[in-house]
Amino acid sequence: MSKCAKHIRSTISQINKYVPGKSIEEVGAQYGCSPANILKLGSNENQLGPSKKAIEAIKYISKSVHLYPDIDSTLLENELSEYTGLPVNNLVVSGCGMDGVIDTLMRLFMREGKKGIISTPTFSYYNIAILANGGTPVFIPRRDDFSIKVNHIIEAAVDASIIFLCSPNNPTGNQIPEKDLRRIVESVDSVVFLDEAYVEFADANFIHLVREYDNLIVGRTFSKAFGLAGLRLGYAAMPEEIQREYRKVATPFSVSKVAEYAGVAALRDTEHLKKSIGMVKKGRLQLSEQLNLKTYQTEANFILTNTYPYLASDVAVKLLKDGIIIRDCTSFGGAGKYLVRITIGTEEQNQAVINALNEIV
Amino acid sequence: MSKCAKHIRSTISQINKYVPGKSIEEVGAQYGCSPANILKLGSNENQLGPSKKAIEAIKYISKSVHLYPDIDSTLLENELSEYTGLPVNNLVVSGCGMDGVIDTLMRLFMREGKKGIISTPTFSYYNIAILANGGTPVFIPRRDDFSIKVNHIIEAAVDASIIFLCSPNNPTGNQIPEKDLRRIVESVDSVVFLDEAYVEFADANFIHLVREYDNLIVGRTFSKAFGLAGLRLGYAAMPEEIQREYRKVATPFSVSKVAEYAGVAALRDTEHLKKSIGMVKKGRLQLSEQLNLKTYQTEANFILTNTYPYLASDVAVKLLKDGIIIRDCTSFGGAGKYLVRITIGTEEQNQAVINALNEIV
Repeated sequence: MSKCAKHIRSTISQINKYVPGKSIEEVGAQYGCSPANILKLGSNENQLGPSKKAIEAIKYISKSVHLYPDIDSTLLENELSEYTGLPVNNLVVSGCGMDGVIDTLMRLFMREGKKGIISTPTFSYYNIAILANGGTPVFIPRRDDFSIKVNHIIEAAVDASIIFLCSPNNPTGNQIPEKDLRRIVESVDSVVFLDEAYVEFADANFIHLVREYDNLIVGRTFSKAFGLAGLRLGYAAMPEEIQREYRKVATPFSVSKVAEYAGVAALRDTEHLKKSIGMVKKGRLQLSEQLNLKTYQTEANFILTNTYPYLASDVAVKLLKDGIIIRDCTSFGGAGKYLVRITIGTEEQNQAVINALNEIV
Repeated sequence: MSKCAKHIRSTISQINKYVPGKSIEEVGAQYGCSPANILKLGSNENQLGPSKKAIEAIKYISKSVHLYPDIDSTLLENELSEYTGLPVNNLVVSGCGMDGVIDTLMRLFMREGKKGIISTPTFSYYNIAILANGGTPVFIPRRDDFSIKVNHIIEAAVDASIIFLCSPNNPTGNQIPEKDLRRIVESVDSVVFLDEAYVEFADANFIHLVREYDNLIVGRTFSKAFGLAGLRLGYAAMPEEIQREYRKVATPFSVSKVAEYAGVAALRDTEHLKKSIGMVKKGRLQLSEQLNLKTYQTEANFILTNTYPYLASDVAVKLLKDGIIIRDCTSFGGAGKYLVRITIGTEEQNQAVINALNEIV
């Protein structure tokens, strides 16, 4: 054994590397499609592109990137305070998307002998983050309709330091009812992390509840509705007391100058946001009505689809040959082999994926 | 005690929040100077600004920031492979500067009951990173000439998981002799992390040694010679075996699309790099010859200066009133109260700081 190897945490051997959605370059090279003809509907990006105001902000600040950013991202935090209605003392920002928020929370709350609760199927990074910090993930499978098992979660949480919830949930699209969320937060002694990455596309959001409880943290991202996935910008709301500790362990200057300025511009471009949300709400209906496959009710910018009796992996590969990238959910723990996730796009993009999928089944 | 508070690691209470150099906005507001007249020589940024090619790259990619970046940063890693002469299997990149590399390494190597060795005075983030991950920092003070105590480090390392070294060292500017580095790496069972943030300004670098040892990791940054501090881009070289584990626990997509493209452009703009290094080498002579204060031999883009019998904090504040930001080193553990660190700038900038400092003393 090498000198380094014996210092590595033992839990890390259990980690399977994060599986991202496929990229245009990858598919272009593998299937010989021209990049311009590839439809990328596997990573839940904003199909309208970034806000034009965000692009302008990036160009404006590009000449100053030799200077360190503001360590407190004051401009962005003030704008987020306006957007969320929360004081800045309840907010933090992160330069590695919401994953960066999760990493920093793990430094506060996770270590050897500590448990983290995960309701599967869900976003796979929670599991990686727990293991990377020495903890033990505990999986509570969802019901057949993908609702969470509130009582099971509460029972399992007796000696857990954190519970991960996701609403709307990735990859299923359903929200947690407010009464279920409140019951968990009130019943447990653990920290509850609620991932609201897709909340702009949903009817309800729970970020204001961080002012009511001392153990609720809500994570958000600029990667979905705000169309800035390429800049890696996330934020979270939490009780003031945790925010103070969070800032002590957060990576200094994690938010780049470019991300801060683009984030502020994207928050101010309410027109682009409204247009993006409108497109998604129309597109969800289009896909659920016209696909000849079982789809699930969704409040996100994607729709989960059951491909049974066809294997999700086969269906995804067939679509790749048509230049359409969707997400085979087989790598999501607990999702089984018959689920694919399709990002909602423009009417025309949706029609293309409907035609291609209906052709296959 | 709140529900959250009892899950927080106990070592975190020992952390003093990271102290950054002062920003132009802060000084402008506090001392009523116009931002355009402020000389920012406290954060070791590139006073020539970013490479024009990097600015062009940022503008070019700005329209695509709605798409996730390449998870493996292939373009950037290939370019770094060319620049360092190392295979990509020895390299990792990070979207939170070199601090992001350190955070990820802490997930691999640091936890409760583990020690990290630090030779003070040095960069303050090593201490924060160890404590944030539950470990115990062990401080070995440098000699009066700021050379490290090799034997003391080796003795202290018996049960340490990591040793932090910095060459050229921040804030002192001196390099570690190769034989000292080799002796430490060969004598200990710990991981040795060598911070080469300022190495482009020095005569020697040790990154190729990662191919010789199984316990040496070398960290680098784009924030100094490459002029991209605002983009938060770092990288590291390490044995292939560690690189595989690193990738499992690294935050996915940590390098933004903008940082990747700008980083590639900056690496290719060898003219700008040469010009920046040339300016620094000339400026070091200018400052050491003309300052009426004791300065220390430096291989970095800053120069450490002894202000005795004047307190460093007083000297720094007096310069702020002239609109000149330098770094009072009092917050660096073990630096005492009489050291300031001055970033090397253009001939004109250096002259301004020389005049202002000589006036004071």
